Amino acid sequence: MICIRYFIMLFLKLFLLFSLCSFTFSHDADFNPHLLPRPLIIQPEDIETQYEKFDDELNLHCTSWRFSVEANNLSPWKTIPEECLGYVKEYMIGRGYKLDLERVSSEAGVYAKNLELSGDGKDVWIFDIDETLLSNLPYYIEHGYGLEIFDPIEFDKWVQKGMAPAIEPSLKLYEKILDLGFKVFLLTGRNEKLKSITIENLTKAGFRRWDKLILRDSEQHGKLAVVFKSEKRGEMVEEGYRIVGNSGDQWSDLLGSDPSRRSFKLPNPMYYIP
Amino acid sequence: MICIRYFIMLFLKLFLLFSLCSFTFSHDADFNPHLLPRPLIIQPEDIETQYEKFDDELNLHCTSWRFSVEANNLSPWKTIPEECLGYVKEYMIGRGYKLDLERVSSEAGVYAKNLELSGDGKDVWIFDIDETLLSNLPYYIEHGYGLEIFDPIEFDKWVQKGMAPAIEPSLKLYEKILDLGFKVFLLTGRNEKLKSITIENLTKAGFRRWDKLILRDSEQHGKLAVVFKSEKRGEMVEEGYRIVGNSGDQWSDLLGSDPSRRSFKLPNPMYYIP
Repeated sequence: MICIRYFIMLFLKLFLLFSLCSFTFSHDADFNPHLLPRPLIIQPEDIETQYEKFDDELNLHCTSWRFSVEANNLSPWKTIPEECLGYVKEYMIGRGYKLDLERVSSEAGVYAKNLELSGDGKDVWIFDIDETLLSNLPYYIEHGYGLEIFDPIEFDKWVQKGMAPAIEPSLKLYEKILDLGFKVFLLTGRNEKLKSITIENLTKAGFRRWDKLILRDSEQHGKLAVVFKSEKRGEMVEEGYRIVGNSGDQWSDLLGSDPSRRSFKLPNPMYYIP
Repeated sequence: MICIRYFIMLFLKLFLLFSLCSFTFSHDADFNPHLLPRPLIIQPEDIETQYEKFDDELNLHCTSWRFSVEANNLSPWKTIPEECLGYVKEYMIGRGYKLDLERVSSEAGVYAKNLELSGDGKDVWIFDIDETLLSNLPYYIEHGYGLEIFDPIEFDKWVQKGMAPAIEPSLKLYEKILDLGFKVFLLTGRNEKLKSITIENLTKAGFRRWDKLILRDSEQHGKLAVVFKSEKRGEMVEEGYRIVGNSGDQWSDLLGSDPSRRSFKLPNPMYYIP
């Protein structure tokens, strides 16, 4: 339905452009607006208003969808809604994503600064990697911002390049967490066989050190991320660690058993991992 | 900072209005646009553009704030940001809030419909009351949409009227949950002494029956909502119930121990309960 409306609006927009052009070209030195037939002036405005209305409606619809993603209200989903491609693109490469990343990083930073460390080296901050420390946005720009169904072979090729840039606000938080004296554990759904390229990529992106890097080995293959990550947190707690902070872009990074004292959900409207 | 910018923009807006009025009043039969000094035409457009830019910036800022609320990234907060009053107002009384409520209700409905009931009458759906089943929006409209610090005495007077309307999409979900055969438990932070007015209000608003109504008694007074609600869920589990769904507008309704199999976070940018 929305797709059809989209095309109608595209047609109306072209018509509007055409009308405005005729209007511009007819505007010479002897131009007298009172001699022009009224509809030529009024119609394009009506279309513009209608176009804006449709834009507003689509914006509301996609904002509502994004809210339900970030509040974890949706059932598992495989691709973004087709009609929200423009919205997600604008959010991801515009200022929206950057602003949201900066806010979550600064909120986490304030919380971390006010925490009292126990001094026994057992206070841990967990970071996820993809879309938390490293950005795969260059890959998703080439693959429809989540509109294409996830292709593990293509994505693997991208990961193997080791070219994912740092998410700058996360790097800033990361530095702060290290400087404050927390232990930093990286907990990722990436496969163990990607260990060396992951280390290379992290280092190149500016993440200078960590205390543990936990990847998914063959044993944990096939487990849901939320189960795998809960189990790993459970092991940390058993080893006497206190998980005081956890940063991740998926709810499956944050929910489950042995949750962190506080969790920070980074924005990600492009994909969902259960 | 933003406040000062707000006032500057207000001034520019007034100036724009004034300029446009002069322009309109000077537009008589002998009007020739080429004789007008250029700045009179160009300046208002510049101001309009600047005004739109500022509006966009404020909108981005407040959207980012709202997402951090709904993703539970913020430290406990007492009032909404002053500069976001207009944004929150527009969201609450415009289409945004309604759309978000409808989406969370329909997502929960689809999930509920696909659940297989055990048939032993032990499958429970928990509903919070305020801003989940009943709307206090009429009160908050009179009290700055969360800009005023919460006044328990004033709010109590409002509750005592028993006039809170149903949140329509929640009522629709509620009916469906009852029809599907779930047990419905209402779990609210409201004080036990508000029991009869709460029953009266719920009934008047169309909530026709429930299996348990759990309020906060004097013993639980002073406990954080997240602790009180976790304890109550714990008791349900001990009694052999399976909590399969939980609807609430606060993360303190949904997080903590013995969480529901799936939780549904209703939007609420007006207040925060820890």
